[in-house]
Amino acid sequence: MNASDRLIESTQELLWERGYVGTSPKAIQQRAGVGQGSMYHHFQGKPDLAAAALRRSAEEMRALNERTLGGPGSVYERIAACLGREREVLRGCRIGRMAQDPEVVAEPELRAPVEETFDWLVARLAGLIEEGRASGEFRPGAPAAELAQALVAVIQGGYVLARAADSAEPFHQAVRGALALLLGQLAEQPE
Amino acid sequence: MNASDRLIESTQELLWERGYVGTSPKAIQQRAGVGQGSMYHHFQGKPDLAAAALRRSAEEMRALNERTLGGPGSVYERIAACLGREREVLRGCRIGRMAQDPEVVAEPELRAPVEETFDWLVARLAGLIEEGRASGEFRPGAPAAELAQALVAVIQGGYVLARAADSAEPFHQAVRGALALLLGQLAEQPE
Repeated sequence: MNASDRLIESTQELLWERGYVGTSPKAIQQRAGVGQGSMYHHFQGKPDLAAAALRRSAEEMRALNERTLGGPGSVYERIAACLGREREVLRGCRIGRMAQDPEVVAEPELRAPVEETFDWLVARLAGLIEEGRASGEFRPGAPAAELAQALVAVIQGGYVLARAADSAEPFHQAVRGALALLLGQLAEQPE
Repeated sequence: MNASDRLIESTQELLWERGYVGTSPKAIQQRAGVGQGSMYHHFQGKPDLAAAALRRSAEEMRALNERTLGGPGSVYERIAACLGREREVLRGCRIGRMAQDPEVVAEPELRAPVEETFDWLVARLAGLIEEGRASGEFRPGAPAAELAQALVAVIQGGYVLARAADSAEPFHQAVRGALALLLGQLAEQPE
């Protein structure tokens, strides 16, 4: 891996572990095994490097979600696979945790990849729900974008509840609850 | 208000604005208009004072939710009033934001009021859903505690999505989506 990629990957890890404020240029250089000169050759500074790391995390997050959402099965099964995929719950969401950081939220270049990832996921889920309505799997009803936003919120809120409980259990309960609620949107209700 | 109450109230405000790590004993004393000697007369230190502040915020949060959940209307209407109550969305949840703070999560006395507040809210919502099932308003189905956990997660996740978008809109969309999903649990489906 070249120095630029090592810097980006190290920054991705440190942002997830320590957040933006807690990640120093020195720590990035040490983890990447790259000198200060090389870092400033590739990137203008911490904001620039963090933006590159967040954009890459956002791409990886989309690809990960697309594996289930674009996979086989009914719309309900694909959404259930996405929500239920294995996660390191207590580490939190590496995208969502960025939204808690005032410095990230205040800096448009840093906030953009966070917002865009959520926008993409909401739009993708809403599109699937519309697709399920068109095929007769789901019944018509509330705007699909609002249902999708609620599903994404369950995931992000599940991480918050898990940290509060110091246990992954509330996350898993919330996901099971959300999927039970989504079942109620199917055209043919299971008896 | 006496010095002890002023210290607690100032700490509540600062924890909401700046988090635990960002709140210094000096800032608390300045906002409360109380000297260092008086602060250490009433409290052993910042963790002790922060725990008192969090316990009070937790009590206030329960009372605020109880106003709608224990109010008039059907179970669905009471839950809708609770989820839809006016909030300062972009300030975030003063309880939930504490769960993002590694120092709070690592300290049992600080984490306890956060966890207990969520446990209370989940149990209260689950009890209402059970009540609604007993009366025939809701249909039987998934464990009520899981549905309740999903509803609480929507609120907490809604705050995260709002900060990511720097707009309250995703929060409101997620709440409308959650209420639409909850409608699907009513015994008599609106046409």
